[in-house]
Amino acid sequence: MSNNPQLNKGGELQHLLTTEGLPAPILLNILDTAESFVGVPERDIKKVPLLRGKSIFNLFFEPSTRTRTTFEIAAKRLSADVVNLNIASSSQSKGETLLDTVNNLSAMHADMFIVRHSQSGAAHLIARHVKPEIHVINAGDGRHAHPTQALLDMFTIRRYKRDFHNLCVAIVGDILHSRVARSQIHALTTLGVPEVRVISPKTLLPTKVDRLGVRVFHDMAKGLKDVDVLLMLRLQNERMLGARLPSAEEYFKYYGLTQEKLARAKHDAIVMHPGPMNRGIEIDSAVADGKQSVISQQVTFGIAVRMAAMTILAGN
Amino acid sequence: MSNNPQLNKGGELQHLLTTEGLPAPILLNILDTAESFVGVPERDIKKVPLLRGKSIFNLFFEPSTRTRTTFEIAAKRLSADVVNLNIASSSQSKGETLLDTVNNLSAMHADMFIVRHSQSGAAHLIARHVKPEIHVINAGDGRHAHPTQALLDMFTIRRYKRDFHNLCVAIVGDILHSRVARSQIHALTTLGVPEVRVISPKTLLPTKVDRLGVRVFHDMAKGLKDVDVLLMLRLQNERMLGARLPSAEEYFKYYGLTQEKLARAKHDAIVMHPGPMNRGIEIDSAVADGKQSVISQQVTFGIAVRMAAMTILAGN
Amino acid sequence: MSNNPQLNKGGELQHLLTTEGLPAPILLNILDTAESFVGVPERDIKKVPLLRGKSIFNLFFEPSTRTRTTFEIAAKRLSADVVNLNIASSSQSKGETLLDTVNNLSAMHADMFIVRHSQSGAAHLIARHVKPEIHVINAGDGRHAHPTQALLDMFTIRRYKRDFHNLCVAIVGDILHSRVARSQIHALTTLGVPEVRVISPKTLLPTKVDRLGVRVFHDMAKGLKDVDVLLMLRLQNERMLGARLPSAEEYFKYYGLTQEKLARAKHDAIVMHPGPMNRGIEIDSAVADGKQSVISQQVTFGIAVRMAAMTILAGN
Repeated sequence: MSNNPQLNKGGELQHLLTTEGLPAPILLNILDTAESFVGVPERDIKKVPLLRGKSIFNLFFEPSTRTRTTFEIAAKRLSADVVNLNIASSSQSKGETLLDTVNNLSAMHADMFIVRHSQSGAAHLIARHVKPEIHVINAGDGRHAHPTQALLDMFTIRRYKRDFHNLCVAIVGDILHSRVARSQIHALTTLGVPEVRVISPKTLLPTKVDRLGVRVFHDMAKGLKDVDVLLMLRLQNERMLGARLPSAEEYFKYYGLTQEKLARAKHDAIVMHPGPMNRGIEIDSAVADGKQSVISQQVTFGIAVRMAAMTILAGN
Repeated sequence: MSNNPQLNKGGELQHLLTTEGLPAPILLNILDTAESFVGVPERDIKKVPLLRGKSIFNLFFEPSTRTRTTFEIAAKRLSADVVNLNIASSSQSKGETLLDTVNNLSAMHADMFIVRHSQSGAAHLIARHVKPEIHVINAGDGRHAHPTQALLDMFTIRRYKRDFHNLCVAIVGDILHSRVARSQIHALTTLGVPEVRVISPKTLLPTKVDRLGVRVFHDMAKGLKDVDVLLMLRLQNERMLGARLPSAEEYFKYYGLTQEKLARAKHDAIVMHPGPMNRGIEIDSAVADGKQSVISQQVTFGIAVRMAAMTILAGN
Repeated sequence: MSNNPQLNKGGELQHLLTTEGLPAPILLNILDTAESFVGVPERDIKKVPLLRGKSIFNLFFEPSTRTRTTFEIAAKRLSADVVNLNIASSSQSKGETLLDTVNNLSAMHADMFIVRHSQSGAAHLIARHVKPEIHVINAGDGRHAHPTQALLDMFTIRRYKRDFHNLCVAIVGDILHSRVARSQIHALTTLGVPEVRVISPKTLLPTKVDRLGVRVFHDMAKGLKDVDVLLMLRLQNERMLGARLPSAEEYFKYYGLTQEKLARAKHDAIVMHPGPMNRGIEIDSAVADGKQSVISQQVTFGIAVRMAAMTILAGN
């Protein structure tokens, strides 16, 4: 096996755990495959039989109706059988270990696990232990990674901006706690975006973030200047207010995206957000619903990207 | 667009939000279409491919396994893909607005939302904002409306009584809090039932209920005299006892349907209840399980009526 | 109807409620039918159309993601439509009786109920009341029975040991609270296993357990001597520690299965466990993951056995 836990012996994608360390051709293959799925939901019968009879498990150790739904819809449009498991309330409370839960489901001839977990590394741990015919997709683990979100962002950027090689992209907000930001940074740099910026208060930046190949800004006016793409992050206010931020109002004043701040970016800059949005905290409604927003398109493309990832994995 | 938020430009049913304001031909079309679905579950393979590939979302902001199941079964027998979302525990707790949740699902190419919400008007709000290719069915909003329940009641009445034009129908119980009662009254009057009665203690009647075209009774013996159809309501005792009613026993004494009280109605009167029943509170078990009860048939017809509503909407 | 509530007039299996009182040919028919399903999940499209269009309800009054999933997967591989109902949080909390819930679902043209309930006898009660075209499978009721677990255990034993007629089988652990143990004992004796042992502390044994045709041991060293098959039980520590057992450590010392204790059994003895395991309490990880463990195979065979039970019931 390759040193990269995501690749099989032949160098093909075995698991999708993180965008970090994935070569550009593999990322681009997912984006290209997704192009072929964009039209499926516009057909009268919006299904293809590619994964018929496959058993896909949505293994959510952390609740997320929203993300679970995107994978469920993607799997059903591929004609797979999907089983949803919300684990917090069941096996884990009976004291079963994570790996016993996974081994149990594997023994039922699972084909794929979609894993969300509050602990960084959970999806990797599972991927290391499953049989070679089983594939794992990380649907978000702790602060670590959320690769399908980053890939749908890349797909959306390519759709609107065509080429990655002359872009300036800014990621704005709580970088420190964001698995989305981490996965976006790795994908953007791998795909050749020459300038990736992060804009954030100092308290919401990881130490040594500059080693990731990004330029750091603490001031929105400077950081947004001449930007092509704005990737807004959700403020995880449930865990942070009080500790690292004075107040939501204060945050909005300095880092909330308003039309006024957006005017610093290029006139055709696009605004993205992984959802769910905190309107009036990290983003103003006028921007969220404005003409530069492609937030709704991200969701649409997200289904196609997840269909692509599932199909590629199932074929490897 | 028409002024009626349920109809499209061509006057066809776009959403099913309430029975109020729907013309008789539209109500009758649903009932007639339902007739063609009654036989489906008696076939060996109890499915039809009419909604194959459609994505239907059960969007339940208020828990109801029972109602959710009827829609899930109806959708599956139409070969649709169904995704269940119990929202209380997820997006809403993350502070996302109702419309952001709906926009998000719409962007996944949803075809239909089945909406239950504790607030009156929630389904209307959603219907006003979705794209024209998406259809909304109200599965109960606050005290406002529950149109599929009323339509399955109308279907059941027509099955047993043939014609609406010479009937006396009594609705018994907690009219004040009942979305079911409101939807029944509108459907009955639109379909030409000449006498609709409500029988209820004064504390459980809305003010100005007589404006709805009903006759008000506070006494069961008088109200049930010569009635053809009894529509019993569930006593929402979780919210009412103590405040508006002395006790469940007292309620049963005056308004609980017993064989003795039922004898005041016509000898071939039918007894209906939307479920779940509080036996010994609003209805005695001898009546609930007696030979005049068609409560079980209501459930059976409810699947056919929901299949009809979904099919008609999807075709408009 | 036969006196046996599980058999129809023709003596065929109508419901699967317990292994008690089921004749050997019926048990063997399930095992033989399951053989034909073992290969299904190894096909490219791991589905057969045997139950297409059937409506199967997972009616779980007690949460169990694990068991629910096995039935859901089995039903989907038979192409049935499956609806999951977690009842604790809904109808029951509205005060609806168990039988009203079941009648309601029956009226939707249910074909099969998979029932889990914390009260012994719940599945029998339901089976007694449903219409003749509906089938009930008991997925665990109180301390009473869990027949599909026992049948998958029998299937696993037969796969590894070929013949039941010369085996010594030991059931180890909390016999008192275990529906699994009860169902295993009935199945083993019916299938002709000449020696069935139970090994347990006195406080975890039902009174008069010897009437079930088993030999009782309180000492692992003696009880495991020359055993062919070890059926370990899960320690329901949530309900017992403190009351009947001094501590988990103490339990492990005397009754936890270690390699050392296992060495008392035959050299080719197999170790089984219904899961989820409490590692370090009733079983040591070295044994659970060791070469005599067939715990994972039990799960795999469990899908085939449940497919077999469903198919046989649906055909009777």
